[in-house]
Amino acid sequence: MPKRVDPLERRRSIAEAVFRVTASRGVEAVSLRDVAAEAGVSMGMVQHYFRTKEEMLLFALDHMRDRVAGRLQARLAHLPEATPRDVARAVLGELLPTSEDSRAEAGISVAFYSRAVVTPAYAEALRQGLRGLLDATTAQLRAAQRSGHMRPDLDAEQEAASLFWLAHGLVGPLLIGLYTPQAAQALLDHHLDRIFT
Amino acid sequence: MPKRVDPLERRRSIAEAVFRVTASRGVEAVSLRDVAAEAGVSMGMVQHYFRTKEEMLLFALDHMRDRVAGRLQARLAHLPEATPRDVARAVLGELLPTSEDSRAEAGISVAFYSRAVVTPAYAEALRQGLRGLLDATTAQLRAAQRSGHMRPDLDAEQEAASLFWLAHGLVGPLLIGLYTPQAAQALLDHHLDRIFT
Repeated sequence: MPKRVDPLERRRSIAEAVFRVTASRGVEAVSLRDVAAEAGVSMGMVQHYFRTKEEMLLFALDHMRDRVAGRLQARLAHLPEATPRDVARAVLGELLPTSEDSRAEAGISVAFYSRAVVTPAYAEALRQGLRGLLDATTAQLRAAQRSGHMRPDLDAEQEAASLFWLAHGLVGPLLIGLYTPQAAQALLDHHLDRIFT
Repeated sequence: MPKRVDPLERRRSIAEAVFRVTASRGVEAVSLRDVAAEAGVSMGMVQHYFRTKEEMLLFALDHMRDRVAGRLQARLAHLPEATPRDVARAVLGELLPTSEDSRAEAGISVAFYSRAVVTPAYAEALRQGLRGLLDATTAQLRAAQRSGHMRPDLDAEQEAASLFWLAHGLVGPLLIGLYTPQAAQALLDHHLDRIFT
């Protein structure tokens, strides 16, 4: 009796293969053939799940977001007594490429930006994902301000955007080794100290 | 009598062709063949000036920095009465992809990050360039602090890094149309207002 495979599981395992190929050889090396070899399946199998390379990469981007969200939930579960500042710090920390997993993910994000300039579907996928994260960060600071954890004289939307894009801007220098994770975190902490009471 | 061609001029015109190919088709399309066609020269001519694609792209990155520095000088020349805040604003503004030229340049920078993950020479070139710009921004804020234009209670190094990486973080959202140039500038202005007296 053939083994039953959950299609979503299979798509995810192909996405993980996309990450490994990208991490070791760069996104330009991501072909259906290489991904199939890395995932240990046939090219036909990859094509059964993804009609095009673009479809495969867009799914990989979605899968990456699920992975990040999962890690963030695990991180927050370890902080049961978390203050609003702790939560903001954890969220921003997940944006930084400081582990092997998150470095590979950042490499893929950067590659998507690079392709987004010429491929509208990638730009749209990035806009949606970033807009959602930015809105969540803003909502978090607004709640912190209502509960008296954030300075009342600051604009929550502006400060959320500043923290979010500063963290975003630190991805590149971390990827190329210009900053250490500690130095990047210290810079974010400086602004968290400024914002939270 | 054959026309005498300045080798540096020729290398620069090839670099400009690299920009145009990247802007219209993405960095993955940058081949010696395409660049030669775009520059209106033979492939042999391109190979005479650059032994490898890597060498060509590294020169293009250098040339891009010269272009940015040139635009910045022109911008500052129009601000003869510039305050330290004006100068900082001009420098940060040059980091943002808000014109056709600077959008093409940002696309190339992003592509370099994407390749830097697997190509150490690109990572080194990026580190050097960014370190220089960051140091210049820090020196600028230190001078502003000494002349009484910047709040004395702030750490010039930390604020310079914040401004610099925030501007850096706004490149992506500008490239994919998540932010308008006005919104990005307003966010930087908010921090300039916070720092300068």
